[in-house]
Amino acid sequence: MAVNDYIRANQDKFLNELLDLLRIPSVSADPKFKNDVISAAKFVADAMEKAGADLVEICETPGYPIVYGEKIIDPSLPTVLVYGHYDVQPADPYELWDSPPFEPVIKNTKIHPEGAIFARGSADDKGQFYMHIKAFEAMMAENELVCNVKFMIEGEEEVGSDNLEKFVVENKERLKSDVILISDTHMISMQNPSITVGLRGMAYMEVEVIGANRDLHSGTYGGAVANPINILCQMISSMLDENNHVTIPGFYDKVQALTEEQRKRLNAAPFDLNEYKEKLDIADVHGEKGYTTIERVGIRPTLDVNGIWGGYIGEGAKTVLPSKANAKISMRLVPDQDWHEIATLFEDYFKSVAPKSVKVKVKSHHGGSPAVVSDSSVGYRAAEAAMEETFGKRPIPTREGGSIPIVALFQKELATDPILFGFGLDTDALHSPNEHYGVKNYFIGIETIAAFFKKFRDLSQS
Amino acid sequence: MAVNDYIRANQDKFLNELLDLLRIPSVSADPKFKNDVISAAKFVADAMEKAGADLVEICETPGYPIVYGEKIIDPSLPTVLVYGHYDVQPADPYELWDSPPFEPVIKNTKIHPEGAIFARGSADDKGQFYMHIKAFEAMMAENELVCNVKFMIEGEEEVGSDNLEKFVVENKERLKSDVILISDTHMISMQNPSITVGLRGMAYMEVEVIGANRDLHSGTYGGAVANPINILCQMISSMLDENNHVTIPGFYDKVQALTEEQRKRLNAAPFDLNEYKEKLDIADVHGEKGYTTIERVGIRPTLDVNGIWGGYIGEGAKTVLPSKANAKISMRLVPDQDWHEIATLFEDYFKSVAPKSVKVKVKSHHGGSPAVVSDSSVGYRAAEAAMEETFGKRPIPTREGGSIPIVALFQKELATDPILFGFGLDTDALHSPNEHYGVKNYFIGIETIAAFFKKFRDLSQS
Repeated sequence: MAVNDYIRANQDKFLNELLDLLRIPSVSADPKFKNDVISAAKFVADAMEKAGADLVEICETPGYPIVYGEKIIDPSLPTVLVYGHYDVQPADPYELWDSPPFEPVIKNTKIHPEGAIFARGSADDKGQFYMHIKAFEAMMAENELVCNVKFMIEGEEEVGSDNLEKFVVENKERLKSDVILISDTHMISMQNPSITVGLRGMAYMEVEVIGANRDLHSGTYGGAVANPINILCQMISSMLDENNHVTIPGFYDKVQALTEEQRKRLNAAPFDLNEYKEKLDIADVHGEKGYTTIERVGIRPTLDVNGIWGGYIGEGAKTVLPSKANAKISMRLVPDQDWHEIATLFEDYFKSVAPKSVKVKVKSHHGGSPAVVSDSSVGYRAAEAAMEETFGKRPIPTREGGSIPIVALFQKELATDPILFGFGLDTDALHSPNEHYGVKNYFIGIETIAAFFKKFRDLSQS
Repeated sequence: MAVNDYIRANQDKFLNELLDLLRIPSVSADPKFKNDVISAAKFVADAMEKAGADLVEICETPGYPIVYGEKIIDPSLPTVLVYGHYDVQPADPYELWDSPPFEPVIKNTKIHPEGAIFARGSADDKGQFYMHIKAFEAMMAENELVCNVKFMIEGEEEVGSDNLEKFVVENKERLKSDVILISDTHMISMQNPSITVGLRGMAYMEVEVIGANRDLHSGTYGGAVANPINILCQMISSMLDENNHVTIPGFYDKVQALTEEQRKRLNAAPFDLNEYKEKLDIADVHGEKGYTTIERVGIRPTLDVNGIWGGYIGEGAKTVLPSKANAKISMRLVPDQDWHEIATLFEDYFKSVAPKSVKVKVKSHHGGSPAVVSDSSVGYRAAEAAMEETFGKRPIPTREGGSIPIVALFQKELATDPILFGFGLDTDALHSPNEHYGVKNYFIGIETIAAFFKKFRDLSQS
């Protein structure tokens, strides 16, 4: 079809535009990148306009703006709403990057023999949402747009989408659609395309354990005064038992148990444990007793320390008994755990296990609800058919361990099941140094999205 | 006596010289201060020379130099060897200092109503070893030096005195003396002078727990791959039981048990638990079951994490499952624990409790042996008499929790019991922000040292 010809003819242009977007260090978690995050929003608005969108608007929020744009070709046709985010994770530790995180380079890898773009945000999510703008451009250019389209690209996904809910609630009419597309997940592999139908939620906590009112000499006071690091380690350790079950009372109360049949289907997905261990260079996996690796990331909740610090961390030895110790701890949640409730259970438990010799502070960062989406809706079937056309293989439904809290939000507020139409791979090093996104994935994604519009129109009208 | 007149007449000069020495950031642990550490050595050599020492020499070592100087007035008189160190602890965290650590200021405090010098190294150990050079200057000026004197001031005490042992062994003849004075400890209070007769030893370890070969997304992998921070916390936690006993097998095997009588005497020292807690702003002390606070720091070994780090420690939230986590862990030791042996026991244990899902690295930093010195030697009795003269109260012998590994070294190599002639207070914030040393402590120290020389000569000849 003409759209694919256009995409193939414009590969260099499509790639260079993405590289320009990746050069903007739009790290939403760190205030020092504030101007860059705002530049990224402008970039996105410009790109939408150039591709042919109407009513493009950089919608201000108390945080970073949401970029909206649309093209209504015929109100009687089905409408596709695209969600994505232009903000990225922090890039530290910088020293572990083989090339600077905001100077994208294309290199061949074993998994991406046709090249991958190395840059923070290449897969999460700039490279993925930008495919939608390019597919739209191609359909517009070739006069083959067969559904109405709306874009909502936000800038706070990596810090909890704090201002999105209000925007969605206040703009229900404007955001009305028949399907929502989100490309912010991964497939099993290029040979085994898949569509994510389950995501975990998250509660993200930060804790501080405080001992004496100042750092002390570990000789003069050691053994007699609480060491906040020792205590923090004990408290963290007490939250997981020997089977790697979380011990916080009530933590599992609302966890949905899957039937044996459901578990069997889940475990039928292609998965090679040896290859998995080899890629990560680990001698063994590590997780909750009684569950497979696929289940541990797909249908079971977790408790992971994402960061810890306290005392002297410079070179050499310093014999300090520190005044305090801190940690960032997140819990991935599964249906029907409620993140506000889990955050409260965590806080109560953490305070209850603190010895009298220390004070503790607990703070809740952003959180999000877990979600499961239908694998039989019109949208899902259109996505399935589009992928089958471009990959030559029918995709399978999977559950992914990550969190996209807005999925549950969209389900609730817009009453529409999003399609998690991700084209990345789990080896793309999301949130890690050397994040990358396959060049081939980028282009096949654009073609698949264009194919989706046709399939969705057809299935909607049949 | 004339010496005291000289000291009182020269207070401003003595104080200003010390402030100049404190302005040199001689942090031995951090290579970026290398030139400053060397400047401090030169300062000390100059000061010795100006005070009247002969044969002053900056003795090179593979690390920082040892400054030696002596004044032999009559080989038939007793000889006093003074040991001290011109290097200081790192000053971080800088932001917790009320004034810059290397810009000394004098401020009054509740405990030091006549002023205290705030600067890194003011009490540990610049302010304390410098008293000896000033006492020497006064005795020389007034022609009242009644013992020979030798100085050995090193620059690597805060990093384990790695090159001192070789120097001592190779210079046994030059260092020959009848008593060794070390002012690097504290007294109970100005009202309750004391002399330290016991010090703990130390083994200082650094550990690394390694999971996957890169930082991972805590959603995609969380629950299935070992989190090195969780594991490190568990491993650390496993090293102390619910009674705060160290669980490392063999750890207590060589710990000397004190008799009930010895414990009773130790606990008779003035100590107010409420005041102790109040000063530290803690609701409760925290330590090994079955021992008092005095015992916990004086006669019992410990295991303290001095520093921990891993994952994301910046602002906000990052959902990373880190590739590794690190900690610095030190153990204070008591007679007859051997630090090499304890370091090995630690390493064996740490490796044995690591799950298969991680790799661990263990490294031993410097260590030192615990020591107990006589409280009835001629040197001790001279120190006791000197303090009684200047403080108006007989000092009591105490055991201090800190470590001065060279005490055991001197006992072994020079066959001389050092006198731990410290004039600081335990509230002086050694190794902490806002370290300080009382102006009054500084001057009374100088007078007491001068008094010691007379008492020691008299008692040696009686």
